[in-house]
Amino acid sequence: MRIVRTVAELRAALAPERAAGRRVGFVPTMGALHEGHLSLVRAARAGSDVVVVSVFVNPTQFDDPGDLAAYPRTEEADVALAAGAGADLVFAPEAAELYPRGYATTVAVTGPLAETLEGAQRGRGHFDGVATVVTKLLLAVVPDAAWFGAKDAQQVVVVRRVVADLGIPTRVEVVATVREADGLAMSSRNARLGPADRPRALALSRALGAVRAAIEAGASAGAARAAGLAVLAAHGVEPEYLALVEPDTLDPLAPADAPDRRVLVLVAAHVGPVRLIDNVTVTPPAPTGAL
Amino acid sequence: MRIVRTVAELRAALAPERAAGRRVGFVPTMGALHEGHLSLVRAARAGSDVVVVSVFVNPTQFDDPGDLAAYPRTEEADVALAAGAGADLVFAPEAAELYPRGYATTVAVTGPLAETLEGAQRGRGHFDGVATVVTKLLLAVVPDAAWFGAKDAQQVVVVRRVVADLGIPTRVEVVATVREADGLAMSSRNARLGPADRPRALALSRALGAVRAAIEAGASAGAARAAGLAVLAAHGVEPEYLALVEPDTLDPLAPADAPDRRVLVLVAAHVGPVRLIDNVTVTPPAPTGAL
Repeated sequence: MRIVRTVAELRAALAPERAAGRRVGFVPTMGALHEGHLSLVRAARAGSDVVVVSVFVNPTQFDDPGDLAAYPRTEEADVALAAGAGADLVFAPEAAELYPRGYATTVAVTGPLAETLEGAQRGRGHFDGVATVVTKLLLAVVPDAAWFGAKDAQQVVVVRRVVADLGIPTRVEVVATVREADGLAMSSRNARLGPADRPRALALSRALGAVRAAIEAGASAGAARAAGLAVLAAHGVEPEYLALVEPDTLDPLAPADAPDRRVLVLVAAHVGPVRLIDNVTVTPPAPTGAL
Repeated sequence: MRIVRTVAELRAALAPERAAGRRVGFVPTMGALHEGHLSLVRAARAGSDVVVVSVFVNPTQFDDPGDLAAYPRTEEADVALAAGAGADLVFAPEAAELYPRGYATTVAVTGPLAETLEGAQRGRGHFDGVATVVTKLLLAVVPDAAWFGAKDAQQVVVVRRVVADLGIPTRVEVVATVREADGLAMSSRNARLGPADRPRALALSRALGAVRAAIEAGASAGAARAAGLAVLAAHGVEPEYLALVEPDTLDPLAPADAPDRRVLVLVAAHVGPVRLIDNVTVTPPAPTGAL
């Protein structure tokens, strides 16, 4: 297990692997690794000959300096966890390595994909920061495939868009959200939930469950959303959004429509000091047949 | 000599070359090839084993739909000229190949590099368009080196910035501006100069010559600029800008300062129906020594 700090070292380390025809798999992370990240590393391990994990708390995707400052940094533990899950190489650059003096380039996804939901809440800069750092990391590693977590659903849509649009020769793979036994989606931010907040944090996954049940029962998008909002309210949690959208375009469903194709349901809410997000993809019941 | 229309064909054509360890050289063009472009192709030929020339009139870098519509399209001649200068492969995609339905990603250079001079005159979108298409083309070809013309001086600075910032593994090479016998910088747009405009178009290169002579004689930036403006006025040409800047940052020189390092002098002006640009890099006289 090796740690590299610069793009030059990274490329030098990977060049012989690539020359030998070995498949390079990549998992970008912001560190503070938990079981969700490790599921990505294991998937990369299963699908690659060499697994690179990056650990980089990307400053440009934080709108809130307080959130950036509070983001947990646990590199030593991260390296051990990544190694245990099958990583061969950790790329852990300083910010100045990726954004040196004079740096001036941004990769941006324009339009609703990046401007709605998280983009609206966290500001335009959030997904610009994500798109830019993912582009830089993919061009540094040049992996055959990169693994992302379904928990950051909108990030996955944005990354897929950038990779397709710029023609980055990497396959994007997505791994299902890993949850605690009680349903809470794993997140590096969960560590900051106080004892009183932890039960309330279940509001998100339970609300998604209610929306899912309603859709599977044939409810309209509006009725399904109302079921989810009721669960959030019962937990005393006010959502930033609870949205039912088309999974690839993030186009919102009309409230009166009963979904007839896969629906992405996303929720974001503050619980105590922590902003949490979660999502689920729901397949509506098969239509009962045309008249 | 082969013409390919899609990124997939391009990659398939280049894969065996790369596998054989051959160096790929690349010259991106908007077609309407003239001696200036051919000097780039010859330089790429001399420095590469395989030479790719792209011919693509990139719609996203035109602020003015009239300019885009009027831009000359001469593909058959371009292919013959490129082959004659040593190209092995022409990549000539349709716009929908590079910007398919749903396309939403922009590569942007923020700050003065892209916002001053051409950026100010042509609008923010111009260099966003340039940065985006150059990124896409470089990621499609993945050349060892790409050749650009010094005539588009600010474009060169923007492209160098993007390549460095995103870590695109391509060497950027620059070839000196090719001029007509009387000094007019070659440009695809020169074909649209009427007989009465053609002599007036010399105002640009002559103004740059006057600025150069003044700097070489030890004049201040302001005095050198005034000498250039006088030449433009004598030809009845009103410049959009005539600027003396630091070559890498494009920071303007203070008028009172006598340049003591290389100066980039840029000019833009409309002559008849055509917008022309030109530039020259000037090395001031060696200082006569500190007191």
